[in-house]
Amino acid sequence: MKFGLFHSVQLPDPSEQERYYREALDQVLHAERMGYSSVWFTEHHFTRHGIVSATTSVLAYLAGVTDTIRLGTAVTVLPFHNPVQLAEQTATVDVLSNGRLDLGVGRGYQWGEFHRMGIPMDEASRRFEESMEVLTCAWTSIEPFDHRGEFWSFNDLTVLPRPVQQPHPPVYVAASGADSVARVVRNDWNLLIGQGETYGQVAGQIEFYQDALAEAEADYTPRRVVVARAMYAAPTTEQARREAEVPFMWFKQTGQEVSAPPGQRVDLLPDEYAAYRSRYSPDARFDYSAMCENVMLFGSPDDIAERIGRLRDSGVENLIFFVNFGGIEHQRVLDSLELFAAEVMPQFTD
Amino acid sequence: MKFGLFHSVQLPDPSEQERYYREALDQVLHAERMGYSSVWFTEHHFTRHGIVSATTSVLAYLAGVTDTIRLGTAVTVLPFHNPVQLAEQTATVDVLSNGRLDLGVGRGYQWGEFHRMGIPMDEASRRFEESMEVLTCAWTSIEPFDHRGEFWSFNDLTVLPRPVQQPHPPVYVAASGADSVARVVRNDWNLLIGQGETYGQVAGQIEFYQDALAEAEADYTPRRVVVARAMYAAPTTEQARREAEVPFMWFKQTGQEVSAPPGQRVDLLPDEYAAYRSRYSPDARFDYSAMCENVMLFGSPDDIAERIGRLRDSGVENLIFFVNFGGIEHQRVLDSLELFAAEVMPQFTD
Repeated sequence: MKFGLFHSVQLPDPSEQERYYREALDQVLHAERMGYSSVWFTEHHFTRHGIVSATTSVLAYLAGVTDTIRLGTAVTVLPFHNPVQLAEQTATVDVLSNGRLDLGVGRGYQWGEFHRMGIPMDEASRRFEESMEVLTCAWTSIEPFDHRGEFWSFNDLTVLPRPVQQPHPPVYVAASGADSVARVVRNDWNLLIGQGETYGQVAGQIEFYQDALAEAEADYTPRRVVVARAMYAAPTTEQARREAEVPFMWFKQTGQEVSAPPGQRVDLLPDEYAAYRSRYSPDARFDYSAMCENVMLFGSPDDIAERIGRLRDSGVENLIFFVNFGGIEHQRVLDSLELFAAEVMPQFTD
Repeated sequence: MKFGLFHSVQLPDPSEQERYYREALDQVLHAERMGYSSVWFTEHHFTRHGIVSATTSVLAYLAGVTDTIRLGTAVTVLPFHNPVQLAEQTATVDVLSNGRLDLGVGRGYQWGEFHRMGIPMDEASRRFEESMEVLTCAWTSIEPFDHRGEFWSFNDLTVLPRPVQQPHPPVYVAASGADSVARVVRNDWNLLIGQGETYGQVAGQIEFYQDALAEAEADYTPRRVVVARAMYAAPTTEQARREAEVPFMWFKQTGQEVSAPPGQRVDLLPDEYAAYRSRYSPDARFDYSAMCENVMLFGSPDDIAERIGRLRDSGVENLIFFVNFGGIEHQRVLDSLELFAAEVMPQFTD
């Protein structure tokens, strides 16, 4: 199996932006040294729930300071981007990293981001389709091409630089239902499964995927499926769950608020760190214990290994870990990554 | 005085994209070690005349592999960018570089790039104005802002991350005529003078600038003016001019063709390297000798020092050198930078 990071930077304390960035990037360097094979950065806009808004720029930075770790987006929200400029930005990262880019894409789900960006959310699917078409063409066309679409027009162009990976960097698409998973297979994309799905849902989606492949008479290639999962390892499961709870629930609650429609949305920016964090109480909204059982990998090395064994039995061979949630202390993240690398990783990579 | 690089990557040989990128980036690392204080990358699209199309991504990469050199764009073509995303990308570079970003902006002049991007060139000035307004607001607003413009609409947003430099990274605007230079002063921007101007024109533009400052009852601050200049140093002026001629004229001619309207434009992409380079002959179109006298800094250290002395007498204290033109051999660029750093730089920085 392969293990990577599903990474982001959040801003619980508005005065600590640079420190959060520095620590998140430092975690990637440590992860590379410890044997993690990829890092996938999210894209978020306009709120403290996620302050990596220029994802390809962050990957370009990492291209310079890392050697082997693969650099991904998870996900780039296609409706937000000029597809030709996205082709330029991603090809540039592919050049700067010598072919280490993986591009995860999605149509977007956060009402607040669409609204603020001035893009009607009901255009999301159509924008996704058009952008994917232009992006693929822009990456691969040797001869100049034209495009006349609903949202974009381009004339007689060839994009430079070209990606190093041929015909283009691998594309991963987040999908969950049977139909959307079948669409992934039909387009020969790779499959990304989100960190919010339960173990049961992950297994179900991989079944959809295998069914669609069988229908297309194609083989199941486990490396083409990437599953994200929050992970925190500590000597005991009790300690892991206790230490992860407040920062992880800050992340969950702010995410809920960002994606909710206007009436239900809480503006995250004006709040003070301590005040915001203290709002979380164990009985509110989400059932942390149930999520620990069914979703996250918060536990002792043995506990986590047992759960990963089950994921592997479902067909998962490529796990990416969300480890830097809600302003959790940097040293704890490093210790957790180290503990996993020392005690769990060898059980699955030999 | 301060000396930097006005940098780009061109693609004379289409099969050598990665090598050109690698060498250009390597030149920046060498320049930093030699005492050059800034590097400013161009933005170009769709032709071999310039293959840095995702300029802020390249600067993000350099943020990771350099320590002190300032990182600039010269220039970012505002009409091509979503101004909120540009605010995100530039603030990200500012965070990743710990406050080393300089943003040069322009309204664009290349017919081919506007046409291919699907943006009417007659909108360039209006798009520039609107983007500059949104960009400034996006960098500096603590409270959410709305924007309803001719080209863009945004709602209730605050951009994250914030720039490290406060209130925002320095903005440089390319301007030449008295009116446009006065506009730079009126907006409290910094002034960028292009590499194509003769020594006489540079002096004239600085006079315009000083006049406008006097009218505004402001002082002349030489560090707020940056002048770009092609530079190539060799032991003798004859050798410098001989070695620079073919690659520099490749650059000049392709630039001409990219910015010309359709009838006059030659498509650069299908040509072979050797065939294209051989098209240049000394009697064609541009007068290389006259340009060597009046525009470029191609010469021996003494010759270059004498010319820089004249520029300093005009009020120039911030020169950035275009050194990586038309596929010129990497080692020659390094030798030229080294010779300048050893023999000319000390005369002006003590």
